Amino acid sequence: MTHLDCDVLIVGAGGAGMYAAIAAARAGAVASLIRSVASYSIRSPHTGAMRYDSTVTRIPAAALGAEDAMMLHRMINRGERVVVRLTMGAQTLPDAPSRNVVAELVGREHPDEVVVMGGHIDSWDVGAGAMDDAGGVVVSWEAVRLLQRLGLRPRRTIRVVGWTNEENGLRGGLAYRDAHQGELANHILAFESDGGVFRTRGFGFNGSDSAMTMVRQAGSLLRRIGADSISRGGGGADIGPIVQLGVPALSPNVAGERYFWFHHSQGDTVDKLDPADMSQCVAAFAVMMYVMADMPERLPRSASATR
Amino acid sequence: MTHLDCDVLIVGAGGAGMYAAIAAARAGAVASLIRSVASYSIRSPHTGAMRYDSTVTRIPAAALGAEDAMMLHRMINRGERVVVRLTMGAQTLPDAPSRNVVAELVGREHPDEVVVMGGHIDSWDVGAGAMDDAGGVVVSWEAVRLLQRLGLRPRRTIRVVGWTNEENGLRGGLAYRDAHQGELANHILAFESDGGVFRTRGFGFNGSDSAMTMVRQAGSLLRRIGADSISRGGGGADIGPIVQLGVPALSPNVAGERYFWFHHSQGDTVDKLDPADMSQCVAAFAVMMYVMADMPERLPRSASATR
Repeated sequence: MTHLDCDVLIVGAGGAGMYAAIAAARAGAVASLIRSVASYSIRSPHTGAMRYDSTVTRIPAAALGAEDAMMLHRMINRGERVVVRLTMGAQTLPDAPSRNVVAELVGREHPDEVVVMGGHIDSWDVGAGAMDDAGGVVVSWEAVRLLQRLGLRPRRTIRVVGWTNEENGLRGGLAYRDAHQGELANHILAFESDGGVFRTRGFGFNGSDSAMTMVRQAGSLLRRIGADSISRGGGGADIGPIVQLGVPALSPNVAGERYFWFHHSQGDTVDKLDPADMSQCVAAFAVMMYVMADMPERLPRSASATR
Repeated sequence: MTHLDCDVLIVGAGGAGMYAAIAAARAGAVASLIRSVASYSIRSPHTGAMRYDSTVTRIPAAALGAEDAMMLHRMINRGERVVVRLTMGAQTLPDAPSRNVVAELVGREHPDEVVVMGGHIDSWDVGAGAMDDAGGVVVSWEAVRLLQRLGLRPRRTIRVVGWTNEENGLRGGLAYRDAHQGELANHILAFESDGGVFRTRGFGFNGSDSAMTMVRQAGSLLRRIGADSISRGGGGADIGPIVQLGVPALSPNVAGERYFWFHHSQGDTVDKLDPADMSQCVAAFAVMMYVMADMPERLPRSASATR
C-alpha cells in the first residue's frame, strides 16, 4: 500500500497516460494521476499500461474515473489547492510460467502453410476481461470449431492461438514469434480479434495490393450478414511481432463505439457480450479464414516483405 | 460493519427491492440481496429505499450491481452453491434538524395566492446527487431568478422550495404541508422537477379538465423550444402531500431515458448535467410558471377537490 499526501500533483491528459509518470516525475511530482482513457463512465475508473524510465524516480501513478478527474479540474480551475491521499494496492509480482494455447485444423494439402488466428487469454485485474479479450479468443475458437463440425478441412492449416500475457508485455506474441521464426515464410495470414466482440462490419487488411484484391473478393461472400466492408489497415498486438516480419494481417472492423465504455474497467463482464453479435462474428470469421486457408493460390505478400 | 457468510440467500427482482428484506426474512433468509434498479450499469451498484416490517427480523439488505446480480443468477442456474460474504457499513444515525429552503417572488396583485415549485436538496450518500435532485432545485431557482432579472412580477406569488429529506422519509414535503395547511386553498399549483434534468419535452399535469385546457394553452408558447407536449399525470414526491389535499400538480416530462443509468449511483455527478438542456428547462419552467402565476383567472380545481 502507498499512502501519500500530495503537495505537487500533475494531472495529465488521458492520451498521455502511458508516459504520465515519467513526465510528472521529471517535473518534480510526487505522484501522477490521469483521467481514465474511457469514452463513457458511470464513475468507472479504467486501468491500463504505463511506463517508467530509468532516468527519473518511479512515482506512484493511477487513473481516476472521468467524473473524479473532471472534479479535480474544476477545483484547480477555480484556484483551489487540491490535496489527494492516494491509497494504492497494486504491486508487480515475480514472473511465473504461462503458455499460449494452440489448436489446429490441419490443412489437407499444405499442412505446413498456416493461417494463424486468435486473441489473448490474459486480461487486466479489473472486470472479467470478457471484451478484452476472452470474446476474441472464443469467437476465433468457435469459428474453427464450426468448420470442423461442418467437415470443412481447407487446403492449409488454420491455427487458433490464445496468446498469453498481452497486457503486460506481449510475452505470448513475442514467444510465438520466437518459437515459429523458421516457419514465418509459410504463415499465409495472421488474424487477431482484440477490439471487443461486437457485430463486425467487415475486416481491415494489411498486405500487398494483389492480396487486398483477394481479401475483398472473399469479403464479398459476407454481404448478406453485413460483414463485407474491407478497409486498409489491420493488425493486433499479439500478431504484431510476426506482422513486423512480413506476415500479412487481418482484423475485424467491429461496431465498437462502446468498447471504451468497458475496456480495462470493472464493467468488462460477460453480460456485455451479445450472443447474436458473437454468432455473426463466428460466421464471418469462419468464412474468411476458410477462404484464406483454402484458396488454390496462397495469399501473395508484398515484394518487399520477408518471405 | 456486518460480516456474514450466508447459507440461505434470496436474490430478488429489482422491482421488489423496497420489500425484499421483509419477504426474504419471512422465508428464513439471513440477508437479502437485490439487483440494482438500474437501466444501465458499468458495474455501478444503485442504492435506494427499502423497508422493514415489525413482524419479521430485520436482516441485512443490499443492492448488487447488475453485472454481479447476473453472475449470481448464472451460478445459481447452473446449480452452484453460492456463498456471499457481506461487508456493509450502512447505519441509521439519529435525526438531526434540517430545513426546507424557501425563496419567493411575491405576487403583485394576489401575494397570498401561491404557485409553489422546486425539488429536493438532499440526496443519497453515493454520487453527488446532481441529477437527483440538485439539478431540479437549481433549474427551479434559476427559472424564478430569470423572471426577477427580466423585471417580470406575476399577479400571484411564485415560491421556490428546496425540500429537505425527500430520500429518507419525505420529511420536508410533509413539514411543508403541515406548516402551510391553512394556506393550501390558495396554492394554485405545485410543480416539482425530480426526474433528472434533461431536455424537457413538455409537462405532465394532474388537475381538472378546465385547468388542463389552460395548461395546454400555456404549453403552446413553448413550441419553439420543443417543450409544448402536455400530458395527463404529473406530480412528485415532495409535492405529494399537498397534491393529496387537492393542489393541482405539474412536472416536466424530460428526455430521461438515461436517468436510471445514474440515479442513486456513484455516477450521479455534475458532469452528467448538460448546460444546454438545463437552460432549456429554465426557459420552459420560467414561461410555464409565469403564465400559471399571472393568469387573470386562477387555475380552476376539480369540483371534488379540497379548496
